Amino acid sequence: MAKLIHDSYGKSKVRLTKVTRNGDRHEIREMSVDIALQGDFERCYTHGDNASILPTDTMKNTVYALARDHPLTSIESFAMTLSEHFLKTVAHCTSSSIDISEVPWQRISVGGKPHDHSFIGGSNERRITRVVRSRDDVMIESGIDHMLVLKTTRSGFVGYIKDQFTTLKPTTDRIFATSVKALWQYNTADADWNANFNDIREVMIAVFAGQDSLAVQQTLYVMGAGALAACDAISEITLTMPNQHRLLVNLEPFGMDNPNEIFVPTDEPHGLIRGTVSRE
Amino acid sequence: MAKLIHDSYGKSKVRLTKVTRNGDRHEIREMSVDIALQGDFERCYTHGDNASILPTDTMKNTVYALARDHPLTSIESFAMTLSEHFLKTVAHCTSSSIDISEVPWQRISVGGKPHDHSFIGGSNERRITRVVRSRDDVMIESGIDHMLVLKTTRSGFVGYIKDQFTTLKPTTDRIFATSVKALWQYNTADADWNANFNDIREVMIAVFAGQDSLAVQQTLYVMGAGALAACDAISEITLTMPNQHRLLVNLEPFGMDNPNEIFVPTDEPHGLIRGTVSRE
Amino acid sequence: MAKLIHDSYGKSKVRLTKVTRNGDRHEIREMSVDIALQGDFERCYTHGDNASILPTDTMKNTVYALARDHPLTSIESFAMTLSEHFLKTVAHCTSSSIDISEVPWQRISVGGKPHDHSFIGGSNERRITRVVRSRDDVMIESGIDHMLVLKTTRSGFVGYIKDQFTTLKPTTDRIFATSVKALWQYNTADADWNANFNDIREVMIAVFAGQDSLAVQQTLYVMGAGALAACDAISEITLTMPNQHRLLVNLEPFGMDNPNEIFVPTDEPHGLIRGTVSRE
Amino acid sequence: MAKLIHDSYGKSKVRLTKVTRNGDRHEIREMSVDIALQGDFERCYTHGDNASILPTDTMKNTVYALARDHPLTSIESFAMTLSEHFLKTVAHCTSSSIDISEVPWQRISVGGKPHDHSFIGGSNERRITRVVRSRDDVMIESGIDHMLVLKTTRSGFVGYIKDQFTTLKPTTDRIFATSVKALWQYNTADADWNANFNDIREVMIAVFAGQDSLAVQQTLYVMGAGALAACDAISEITLTMPNQHRLLVNLEPFGMDNPNEIFVPTDEPHGLIRGTVSRE
Repeated sequence: MAKLIHDSYGKSKVRLTKVTRNGDRHEIREMSVDIALQGDFERCYTHGDNASILPTDTMKNTVYALARDHPLTSIESFAMTLSEHFLKTVAHCTSSSIDISEVPWQRISVGGKPHDHSFIGGSNERRITRVVRSRDDVMIESGIDHMLVLKTTRSGFVGYIKDQFTTLKPTTDRIFATSVKALWQYNTADADWNANFNDIREVMIAVFAGQDSLAVQQTLYVMGAGALAACDAISEITLTMPNQHRLLVNLEPFGMDNPNEIFVPTDEPHGLIRGTVSRE
Repeated sequence: MAKLIHDSYGKSKVRLTKVTRNGDRHEIREMSVDIALQGDFERCYTHGDNASILPTDTMKNTVYALARDHPLTSIESFAMTLSEHFLKTVAHCTSSSIDISEVPWQRISVGGKPHDHSFIGGSNERRITRVVRSRDDVMIESGIDHMLVLKTTRSGFVGYIKDQFTTLKPTTDRIFATSVKALWQYNTADADWNANFNDIREVMIAVFAGQDSLAVQQTLYVMGAGALAACDAISEITLTMPNQHRLLVNLEPFGMDNPNEIFVPTDEPHGLIRGTVSRE
Repeated sequence: MAKLIHDSYGKSKVRLTKVTRNGDRHEIREMSVDIALQGDFERCYTHGDNASILPTDTMKNTVYALARDHPLTSIESFAMTLSEHFLKTVAHCTSSSIDISEVPWQRISVGGKPHDHSFIGGSNERRITRVVRSRDDVMIESGIDHMLVLKTTRSGFVGYIKDQFTTLKPTTDRIFATSVKALWQYNTADADWNANFNDIREVMIAVFAGQDSLAVQQTLYVMGAGALAACDAISEITLTMPNQHRLLVNLEPFGMDNPNEIFVPTDEPHGLIRGTVSRE
Repeated sequence: MAKLIHDSYGKSKVRLTKVTRNGDRHEIREMSVDIALQGDFERCYTHGDNASILPTDTMKNTVYALARDHPLTSIESFAMTLSEHFLKTVAHCTSSSIDISEVPWQRISVGGKPHDHSFIGGSNERRITRVVRSRDDVMIESGIDHMLVLKTTRSGFVGYIKDQFTTLKPTTDRIFATSVKALWQYNTADADWNANFNDIREVMIAVFAGQDSLAVQQTLYVMGAGALAACDAISEITLTMPNQHRLLVNLEPFGMDNPNEIFVPTDEPHGLIRGTVSRE
């Protein structure tokens, strides 16, 4: 016989655009929301009894209804509101998880002046948050996904283990490109979400640019340490950094040198480095 | 000051095709391999000291070199070999994870006869495995990803919670479509991987087709229970099933009825149901 | 001053699922429809005058409404109906184009018996059609997209031009993998669309499997010639075949040979071969 | 019997990164190159005779070799060089087409100062060019792909045709979002490619922001007209603009109004508007 030992259900990819009209000056926030509930939903699995089930369609409606009255100045505050709502509405729900991923829109400049109601988008970078709330506790993580950075020098990789399958040559000067995913844990439920996000993002980019990198691992560590130093409101940060290799092309067969100028960007295979950094 | 509290590194998306030539009759296996190592790699993060680092480029080479001598009759056995190799090679590695995703190729039939060396592919379905090995232990999970199934009737959804945001109408007859991800845990390191995979896949499809579904949750549960009943070598199974909605089109504005015939398939938003089923 | 010299507008990616219920035995067709109209719509572009514009939202509704009464036994016949409708409805429309791409669903077998109402999908292969209708004429093209085929031998590439940038080695035995796009032109508006599709697909696969390929170009040509020979109702066929390279891995640095066994599949760069074959 | 009536072959997705080092100040250009040749290659198709075939692998090598000596200050000038090379190398080639798509990298600012060698990317927007060269002629087109713009007001759609399938309500205030593809034809082979690109892009964005749009078609037309007015070196421009709908959510069932604040962004279906604008 079979026993249900874990379960969760919800709605994913609820997309939302909210326009806030301060007179002629408009603000726009666009996002995708994922909702998941845990709790006593077992009879639905084992008996097809839906009496304990808030339909995922209703979850979708709830996102739009609550967005109407919410200022939506940050995805964190909206995720807090949503997570609270579902715990309140569904008595037998023990924990709600809200994931929000924000699509960036930048105000267009026309003749050097920021436009009132026109925006340009197109970046893959996302501001993200995850709020997990139980009856006693709330955990707030925020971060960045797909932040694509590259440096053309001040990155090397030497002194590593060699075995019978080693063909890689050591280098003291290579291109370093990566798509950063960062997720930091807040130690408070009442932070200045937008300012913190901007501070952490800025310091991570500056550290990436400024460091002489001896390994992707080392860069990951100093970026994480930099984020912790820049923001008291966070307790730890997890970084995931694929090594998006630019391979030096061998031009010798054509009688040419290649003084670190011509590279092939490749998507696969790629190195994948992860690390979590916390305060000492 | 900052402290590294978790780390892992490796190579992802190492793609491999192996052709086995039994005379004129060829076999093909194609896959993508992800490798991750955990262990004492801290000085690389904190000091840029690579003395403990086996380069991810070498991991890639290792996949090809070991594939040469390995029969590769199943992705599980190859993942076992890889996970063992890295623990043996890297003395300070405490745990290695190998994920393999197999790309399916079917033998072409010509005039009703299976062809010796020609194959047709194109399915998004993947056979997957994950082997996590420490110095004392090995954990083997296998599964299916992106198994897309649909039934045109014998699925309903009634009797759920109603609140102020409910607009969904109950239905006793809807289309049920989902892209199944299943991951089961083996209780042995020496199973007939291919036969088990085929048995579990077949029973899950048969259960999906045969059940009168009262909820996606219920179908998930009986598919999991079916898998456990069909294969003694597994101890538990986790299923993830998005509800890929087909929405009934309202044709009334055009003076038409719609007796469950015309639907819009939508990708987002979608329900997302997860559950883990184990033996009692 | 500026002049509009070409224009077209319409609705893309109108997704539709139609279930036909012959008693307990259900049929399913799923597709995505693109509509484009050409004609006298200039004042909309130059003056923002929409008096000549049938909204693209109405085009979407039309797809669902017409699908209700249409048997939808083939995408060709449905595209014919749609193309006719828009010419009739919009008096100043000179030409309508309908593109349909069908998502394949296979009936599930349970215990060797085809199931009445359960289906399995997941293939990227698509059956496609394009109907372009003017006031005097109709052009019907049909085809296949993303038909992924591979052979492990009987493919070579020798005797090509060598210049100062050549590094490729000739080979008489390589893997040949390609994702075929075929588009054939019908010489009639009243063919057995389904039978023709099946015949052409089958002969192209058989030719691919059976031929000793000296070049992708040559295989393309014999597949096209085979299609023309198999189906009197078509006048020409255009094939597009990327060469999805499987590169032989050099195992010599590891002291190993590689007798055409271990390959890396790569997506980019890829060869891209196109050709149109007609009757003499 | 079958006859080859059109053919073309080449290499696609040749990815290239070039770093130019002006002392400490580095420049980076990253791109993907597609090459296609037309000419007398028929015996390869009909007889598998490769004597006339420059391998696509050699085309790839050529991109890297020529990039070494080329300043690569614009994709247009590099495409010109490549197109010339292949016509010169392959005597029986009648026409070569080079398509280049450039991946954007922005210099990182640290403390308000542009960094010497660190860059941020991640935008889907692409600068593109196509150079088609025959023995007598060269055609140069350039453009932008995936330029994502949105305005929250000053867009309406009224006064359109109504028929039995119309359900759309007229609106004088909607969100207008689109992903612009623009391709303009140069009337010279010797323009300031970078300045022209920047001018045309800037004017199109300004027109989009500034116009009171009565239809996507009208906006397309004025953006095209604006480009022609801004740049004497181009003779015509083709714009493709999907209407990436933001649908107003009906909040009435929840007892709420929705004063143009809460929208659902949708990817499909979408309107698709095309137009070519030339000088009078």
